[in-house]
Amino acid sequence: MNRICELFNIKYPVIQGGMVWCSGWKLASAVSNCGGLGLIGAGSMHPEILEEHILKARNATTKPFGVNVPLLYPETEKIMEIIARNGVKIVFTSAGSPKKWTAWLKDNGITVAHVVSSSMFAEKSEAAGVDAIVAEGFEAGGHNGREETTTLTLIPSVRKATSLPLLAAGGIGSGQAMLAAMVLGADGVQIGSRFAVSEESSAHPAFKQHILNLSAGGTKLALKKLAPVRLVKNAFFEQVDELEKRGASAEELSRLLGRGRAKKGIFEGDLENGELEIGQVSAEIHEILPVKIIMENLISEYKSAVKGILAEKRFNF
Amino acid sequence: MNRICELFNIKYPVIQGGMVWCSGWKLASAVSNCGGLGLIGAGSMHPEILEEHILKARNATTKPFGVNVPLLYPETEKIMEIIARNGVKIVFTSAGSPKKWTAWLKDNGITVAHVVSSSMFAEKSEAAGVDAIVAEGFEAGGHNGREETTTLTLIPSVRKATSLPLLAAGGIGSGQAMLAAMVLGADGVQIGSRFAVSEESSAHPAFKQHILNLSAGGTKLALKKLAPVRLVKNAFFEQVDELEKRGASAEELSRLLGRGRAKKGIFEGDLENGELEIGQVSAEIHEILPVKIIMENLISEYKSAVKGILAEKRFNF
Repeated sequence: MNRICELFNIKYPVIQGGMVWCSGWKLASAVSNCGGLGLIGAGSMHPEILEEHILKARNATTKPFGVNVPLLYPETEKIMEIIARNGVKIVFTSAGSPKKWTAWLKDNGITVAHVVSSSMFAEKSEAAGVDAIVAEGFEAGGHNGREETTTLTLIPSVRKATSLPLLAAGGIGSGQAMLAAMVLGADGVQIGSRFAVSEESSAHPAFKQHILNLSAGGTKLALKKLAPVRLVKNAFFEQVDELEKRGASAEELSRLLGRGRAKKGIFEGDLENGELEIGQVSAEIHEILPVKIIMENLISEYKSAVKGILAEKRFNF
Repeated sequence: MNRICELFNIKYPVIQGGMVWCSGWKLASAVSNCGGLGLIGAGSMHPEILEEHILKARNATTKPFGVNVPLLYPETEKIMEIIARNGVKIVFTSAGSPKKWTAWLKDNGITVAHVVSSSMFAEKSEAAGVDAIVAEGFEAGGHNGREETTTLTLIPSVRKATSLPLLAAGGIGSGQAMLAAMVLGADGVQIGSRFAVSEESSAHPAFKQHILNLSAGGTKLALKKLAPVRLVKNAFFEQVDELEKRGASAEELSRLLGRGRAKKGIFEGDLENGELEIGQVSAEIHEILPVKIIMENLISEYKSAVKGILAEKRFNF
């Protein structure tokens, strides 16, 4: 049996990535109901809001679901306390050291996955006692590693560094890409962008519509002097880019960024002034679909891709 | 039959990328002798040197080989004239418009492939009449596209844009990565870094040795205000990086770069002051091997990876 399916007790090794302002109870429970693992993204939630989402998700699905906790926010302790108190059994941590919370989570009977951008961090995560690793490449949306290692080169090196169950993330929006990532050594995939523009995503309709129109080169890694983040090239991005090109300091960039830009863009639909986070694979997304269809497409594309290797002439030499 | 094998009359759909200061007659003929397609890299050769390499390659192999011509150098006309006069039958063009030379090359009975970094350029190449497309992602060494699209997201979009035979390049250094790229839609692969540090590469031994010691994050895309190029993070890179961080102009960067930096680094082995071009996959290269072993490894890894899809539990869900 596939180790990711076994670890999380799910049908397909497909995790819906926790994404600020996109992945509330509605998206997470829809993915879990379709045989994947849905994650509530705590990164954009105050503790009491998270609790509400956990309770609603539990009402909406009998299947396992989890919470993603970026460790860079101030309310992490309260978030973790709510997760444990409400009996959530799966936590994905990201954007911080795996040493901080893994032992505590494990002590509370929680299965832990940690998101990394290099094999070095994968080794640290294994040493910290996590149950699974998510290795996320440069093409991913939102916050991103400083090494700029792409998924194609990251997965084989993380696979060599650890024997833990491994999820590939960044650039995966089809069953073909899912199979490709698994050929590279992953046990499954974490998918963000494709679910960010699903019907069940809580992103603003204008944000979703805007993503459908992006083409290659429509996003870029920015704010490298703060924390690198992949953004849509909108008016706000152009301001950032102009500052960066003339060598602006972290302080200047931080001042321009201010607070609440991601909410403004993704949740409130301010396409000009918001921080619009999405992955490179957005160039290949042309429809807002319900999760059910996204999951069916993924699995049927995956199965066709497996068959293709045996049937298509190009694989035969 | 595989279309790349058919088009170039080769056994395996593996192209050795043309690389400045690495791929002379010795490397190209070795790859061709092992069933791939070797390319002489004209980018670092004056016309009379190229002619010498073509003649030596012809002495060293009876198999097809080609020449890679980056279109940004001043002597392109002489280079093309020498290629045609010496009966070279395969040319890969890069770093320029496919409109410039494709018709002329086709008129001279030459099979043409063009290197692109986006589906838009793939469409332009098809319109210009090329026989095959190389789609090269962000992780590749040396000169690189402005869109920063990674191989994982580039290949599916180029596959949709053109029906021509398609080679994936950037981040491919193993048979697993080769299969992954083909699952994404490629008909074959172009490999650079792995061959740059082969025994037959004409790069300086100190350069090759240095590449073996790189780890993740050991390279970075630099000189974006001139033409983006992926470089090893050495002393020269640090100078570039410092200038870029304080917003230096293209003129300042160009002054620092000067002339002959790639030769100094790759061919003369000046690891401090040279421009050391290599791909992200260098982090996974730990040995200097003869081409024969590299090719055998690639093909046996590819075949094991195909078998693995049918045999390994993780692919079964």
